[in-house]
Amino acid sequence: MKVTIIGPGLIGGSFALALKKRLEGVVVYGWDQNADHLQEALDLGIIDHMAVSLEEALQKGDWVILAIPVNAIESILPKCLDGLKAHQILVDFGSTKKSICAVADKHTNRAQFIAAHPIAGTEYSGPQAAFPGLFEDKVMIVCDETESSAEAITGFRKLCKMIGMSTTYLKAAEHDVHLAYVSHLSHVIAFGLSNTVLKQEESDEHILDLAGSGFASTVRLAKSSPDMWTPIFLKNKRAILDSLENYLDHLTHFKSLLESEDHEQIRAFLEKGRAIRKILK
Amino acid sequence: MKVTIIGPGLIGGSFALALKKRLEGVVVYGWDQNADHLQEALDLGIIDHMAVSLEEALQKGDWVILAIPVNAIESILPKCLDGLKAHQILVDFGSTKKSICAVADKHTNRAQFIAAHPIAGTEYSGPQAAFPGLFEDKVMIVCDETESSAEAITGFRKLCKMIGMSTTYLKAAEHDVHLAYVSHLSHVIAFGLSNTVLKQEESDEHILDLAGSGFASTVRLAKSSPDMWTPIFLKNKRAILDSLENYLDHLTHFKSLLESEDHEQIRAFLEKGRAIRKILK
Repeated sequence: MKVTIIGPGLIGGSFALALKKRLEGVVVYGWDQNADHLQEALDLGIIDHMAVSLEEALQKGDWVILAIPVNAIESILPKCLDGLKAHQILVDFGSTKKSICAVADKHTNRAQFIAAHPIAGTEYSGPQAAFPGLFEDKVMIVCDETESSAEAITGFRKLCKMIGMSTTYLKAAEHDVHLAYVSHLSHVIAFGLSNTVLKQEESDEHILDLAGSGFASTVRLAKSSPDMWTPIFLKNKRAILDSLENYLDHLTHFKSLLESEDHEQIRAFLEKGRAIRKILK
Repeated sequence: MKVTIIGPGLIGGSFALALKKRLEGVVVYGWDQNADHLQEALDLGIIDHMAVSLEEALQKGDWVILAIPVNAIESILPKCLDGLKAHQILVDFGSTKKSICAVADKHTNRAQFIAAHPIAGTEYSGPQAAFPGLFEDKVMIVCDETESSAEAITGFRKLCKMIGMSTTYLKAAEHDVHLAYVSHLSHVIAFGLSNTVLKQEESDEHILDLAGSGFASTVRLAKSSPDMWTPIFLKNKRAILDSLENYLDHLTHFKSLLESEDHEQIRAFLEKGRAIRKILK
């Protein structure tokens, strides 16, 4: 089986490594607009061949995986779809799906395209961050699956299963709202906390010396790549703004409770929030 | 050596277990206003003897550790100081220090008291959450140390070193401002996120099925005990409100950048926040 990875970084690279680990005879072709990253992916054994151009890379794989920022996916998608041969299947791994599906839906080769989002990641990025176990026991979301051919979906589900992933299906618009709440908002929050504490440290320089594991956990996602996250925020703007407004309302409510020292209501706010432990173990 | 733990839960219990692991002949007396917790601490081998009353517990230890909510520390502190015998040292482990020190400062036995805060913890609570390694390689903050006798401070630093902790010194007021930024604010943020997502789930019930490790990390502190955290928020109200207002300003700024789709400035906001990775490894 031949696989092309466009963007062999954390996500694309881990997918390649997982396939190589689970399947005999996988040959991986890679392309990246960053030549250093591409060389690194080769040196690390993530890819077997560096394509000389995006065009060449697109021709090589039975499976072609787009694991690049969501704005880049959207802009190269028509070209990728144009050149597909009958046996090729194109999959994107972007974290937003609505605008990507809108582009794909207009194309005659739509049935050869799968809009997917693996719910897996770390705060690190690039080929060096890739590892074969990233996707084990994780969920692959497939959006608007009835727009893809049944054959493509069946084949992709098998690939996912082989690397330890279950598959779930969602409308693209629903996906974007869900993910705004359970992923994108957490990133906004972490970047906001990081900015707040770093700014405070300018006037009080050893403030971070006393940070414990709680702060580290809350701020962790602020280490994520701006290249990936700027486009995600922009592409999922409406749903993220809605979730952010709801979040700001909750914090402003807490602030007024604290200002008025409303012991009972503060406690109730914490008890309500604490119910998350029944859901997240 | 005899040690009394008032509140043998996550913090007090872990301190007892660490001492027992590192030192021969430690005998631990415990008291808790929750009789079930006290029995649990005995059953788990955290304490060796259950005191029948707070009064009895206070008389037993060469070291008396207060590891209970900060409002409870403040209210029993005068009584604890009143009854100290000449060889006894009283230590509190509260997460806020200014108002506790203000109570202690008025007392004639102030020199036998140490205002301390171990920078260690998890999102769990109670005796079952205690473990002997909690304090290894962590920092013990001691506040207003010149108000304590040099002998008490030297002895306490030795105890901390024995269980793997370094000791650092801060004014109580400074401590409370620092901790607002690097600990208390993270808890407010997590409780706010948890409330937001749980509320959204009422109308969109499977939203949490798709939560990944990023959400879990950001929301983790919302599992913390409301018994501990309601008093911390109230006791450190001013500093927490300041940090929360700064945080809300940063998020509101981000919101306006996203509304106007200011690609460059969003990216700059993320790049600035990402600098946290140089500090937190």
